[in-house]
Amino acid sequence: MWSVTVYFLIGVVSVLANDVKTIVDERNRLLKRELDMMIGSDIVLSDSEQKVNEMIMKLKINEMDFGFEHPQYFNYSKHFFEYKDEVKKSKLFKLIKQMPKGAVLHAHDTAILGPDYLLNLTYWDDLYVCFEEEDVHLLFAAETPDSACKTKWQLMRDARYSSGNVEKFDRELRQYFTIVIDNPQEVYSDINIIWTKFQKIFMTAGTMLTYMPVWEQYFYDSLKALRDDNVMYFEVRSVLPELYDLDGNVYNSVETAVAYKRALDKFMNDYPDFIGAKLIYAPLRRVDAKVIKDSIRVAREIKRKLPDFLAGFDLVGQEDLGEPIKDFLPELIEASNEIDYFFHAGETNWYGTSSDENLADAIALGTRRIGHAFAIIKHPVLMEEVKKRNIALEVNVVSNVVLKLVEDVRNHPLAFFLAQNMPVVISSDDPGLWEAEPLSHDFYVTFMGVASRHADLRMLKKLALNSLYYSTVSNKDKVIHEFDIRWTKFIDTIVKDQW
Amino acid sequence: MWSVTVYFLIGVVSVLANDVKTIVDERNRLLKRELDMMIGSDIVLSDSEQKVNEMIMKLKINEMDFGFEHPQYFNYSKHFFEYKDEVKKSKLFKLIKQMPKGAVLHAHDTAILGPDYLLNLTYWDDLYVCFEEEDVHLLFAAETPDSACKTKWQLMRDARYSSGNVEKFDRELRQYFTIVIDNPQEVYSDINIIWTKFQKIFMTAGTMLTYMPVWEQYFYDSLKALRDDNVMYFEVRSVLPELYDLDGNVYNSVETAVAYKRALDKFMNDYPDFIGAKLIYAPLRRVDAKVIKDSIRVAREIKRKLPDFLAGFDLVGQEDLGEPIKDFLPELIEASNEIDYFFHAGETNWYGTSSDENLADAIALGTRRIGHAFAIIKHPVLMEEVKKRNIALEVNVVSNVVLKLVEDVRNHPLAFFLAQNMPVVISSDDPGLWEAEPLSHDFYVTFMGVASRHADLRMLKKLALNSLYYSTVSNKDKVIHEFDIRWTKFIDTIVKDQW
Repeated sequence: MWSVTVYFLIGVVSVLANDVKTIVDERNRLLKRELDMMIGSDIVLSDSEQKVNEMIMKLKINEMDFGFEHPQYFNYSKHFFEYKDEVKKSKLFKLIKQMPKGAVLHAHDTAILGPDYLLNLTYWDDLYVCFEEEDVHLLFAAETPDSACKTKWQLMRDARYSSGNVEKFDRELRQYFTIVIDNPQEVYSDINIIWTKFQKIFMTAGTMLTYMPVWEQYFYDSLKALRDDNVMYFEVRSVLPELYDLDGNVYNSVETAVAYKRALDKFMNDYPDFIGAKLIYAPLRRVDAKVIKDSIRVAREIKRKLPDFLAGFDLVGQEDLGEPIKDFLPELIEASNEIDYFFHAGETNWYGTSSDENLADAIALGTRRIGHAFAIIKHPVLMEEVKKRNIALEVNVVSNVVLKLVEDVRNHPLAFFLAQNMPVVISSDDPGLWEAEPLSHDFYVTFMGVASRHADLRMLKKLALNSLYYSTVSNKDKVIHEFDIRWTKFIDTIVKDQW
Repeated sequence: MWSVTVYFLIGVVSVLANDVKTIVDERNRLLKRELDMMIGSDIVLSDSEQKVNEMIMKLKINEMDFGFEHPQYFNYSKHFFEYKDEVKKSKLFKLIKQMPKGAVLHAHDTAILGPDYLLNLTYWDDLYVCFEEEDVHLLFAAETPDSACKTKWQLMRDARYSSGNVEKFDRELRQYFTIVIDNPQEVYSDINIIWTKFQKIFMTAGTMLTYMPVWEQYFYDSLKALRDDNVMYFEVRSVLPELYDLDGNVYNSVETAVAYKRALDKFMNDYPDFIGAKLIYAPLRRVDAKVIKDSIRVAREIKRKLPDFLAGFDLVGQEDLGEPIKDFLPELIEASNEIDYFFHAGETNWYGTSSDENLADAIALGTRRIGHAFAIIKHPVLMEEVKKRNIALEVNVVSNVVLKLVEDVRNHPLAFFLAQNMPVVISSDDPGLWEAEPLSHDFYVTFMGVASRHADLRMLKKLALNSLYYSTVSNKDKVIHEFDIRWTKFIDTIVKDQW
């Protein structure tokens, strides 16, 4: 009797053990299928890469698991301003900075460099300043400007040194060049408020930057900053404003593009290891069809003049308040055989509105990539289309936090895009305005805050490769080969230095 | 020559017009395919329903479009506490309140009714109170309790009337029963802080609610509140605590379940138009396997005793800090043939962690529905599985805001679930704790804040139908038929009253 009971019990236990195995196998199989689908899963790591991977995963998982227990210390669910400087000290950030990251495919020309750089520009000769109650106007001129000023124009040099406290003067002036403040959640209480501040910086800096000598220097120094951040190639978006000089000359958009090409050539001469840059002409969207028609004409002229430099065309500005793409269909269709499109679309969380549905128009117009595409997660058919047509989504995760589309990056749709291996590139939009590195912060936040705990070096490498693959760089194969060489060198350095 | 030019121009114009038509057709086709996929798209509205639909869409679109231009006035991107009372005055809210909404399938028993109700309970006889520095303890007793109290136990009646200011006394006491405060973003600065406060309310109210006469009354009144909110059926989750009475009796979990059944029978007798309620036994997850084993035993006993009342089993508590499902696999598998599961899973934004991966375990264990499933959006394979296996996601959008998973509801994954017509039911989790209606606020926020601008009455009807379809109600076809009758009556009333 005893032996029968034991036999019976063993039977129950082993049946149960089998059942447990079945369920464990199933849950593992489900999760494994997802890992095999995740971005970067097709990359096979070399032995050296595996060593680096172990190192970075140890750092990442330590930080994540600590945050999981103590969420008050987890940076990436907070506002970017709270942790952006602190993280720079971390080993992992330094490693990501040193890592070859490929290309920046979505960034606006006058927002690459930060407030310290702009402040330095105010030390140039011939800069005049007009301080008004809440505004400051800047203009280079051979003599005192006669343009509107509610107070008076004075030479910046005079204003600065007669202020009695240069440090205080500069500290206050710097504030006009940055969106960073201590209490963003309070001050930037809705999306229009932050966009107003954001656009004001562009305008304030704009009159200083559109001085031809500064313009070329700024672009040159932007390329240098990208190179220093281990970016090898850049597709820069620009509204191509009119430029001016001290002699009273005014340069139109085509000449502005030429100035960029000139600065690029100089830079390539000085730093021949940089791969290059192309231009996406991206005028403001809050205009009428006649203006768009004229912009298209400008794009065509640039294309004729600098066929290898112009990548294509886009429209910029706060999407919710601007005109939808569909209002310009005749103008955009007419040029679509000649000009490639790289439309901003779906930089919104207004589901079912005109800015949300810009996504459909961009796709129908054959856009090569989509700027932001934040809202595409709500569009199952459009997501299928971008996969099918291989249209890359230019995701700017830090920008979307700062410009108030999402608060906690863990809720950013990028997590979903990465899980599904959607055609994604990581970019930085306007890093200078929020005092971020040209690309490293966006890679870092993606890796630490957005991606799965399991996402590893393969994801980082794939994102870097994607940025080249989805670019319009000439000799793409050669460039990717060059990337591989630099990547291997990076890996070897990390392994050798025993980081 | 002139006529040739004209002919040529007409040719260009008509070619372009065709091109525009092609592109417009394509964007419309893409967007149409999405509308045809959206939840509720299979519902065909009657003429009367169409009239109501026009009415509600006018109200919805007016409010949305105003918010689109003036985001500072758009409620649903703000914290729930800021707008929850204001919206009750709106015509659309009143209509949604009046609308038959089917079932509540995810709500916790002692969090259905709000602080005003709990405050009223403190007027019952025989209630003792112990005020400590930051806590208050409540207990019904025949004489002064001898359980721990750092100050002293006194009869609530005595404490109240000796306070000198009953209104102030009650106002302060009420604060212990609500999570609602003026500055949630500041005070509830991370998820653990809000969960601590949240759990404290359960504990404070708990010792008052577990007094047997109160227990039955609370459940009776919860059913009444649901019925008043035009909910016809309820699956209530309970930890089934021990109950007590003035005679020193203590009732175990099975007896607690029996008390619920008794209260339900009384309610059904008084309100025979209510369809009924079932119980999901859901003990705390932060325990060891031995405790789970015992809980399963309790579930089995309830099932034996009240086979028609027990719907199934779940585990509750802050998922990130609790034990993952996988730690209890042997215990859960063993009972899986007898007990249906309704697991909480993925109530987290920690991607790739144990709480995130509870989703896989819940599915592998054959869960019938998933509580929250907030994180499933990051799991493409698991989303396919829930569709294939027809596992409903119990989404509690207001809860997820209050308990800090997401700030702006427009970023809630529910938008994606609705777009894909995933098996979704809308529920309210703990509406009393944040002073929401039993279900209307969650429906309203889903409709106004989360869903597409195009989502209409068909979505609302489908969500109500889903809540019955994915329930375990007996005689489901009959219940759905009864729903249809009430729905038609609702529609006719709205049309007749010319809302």
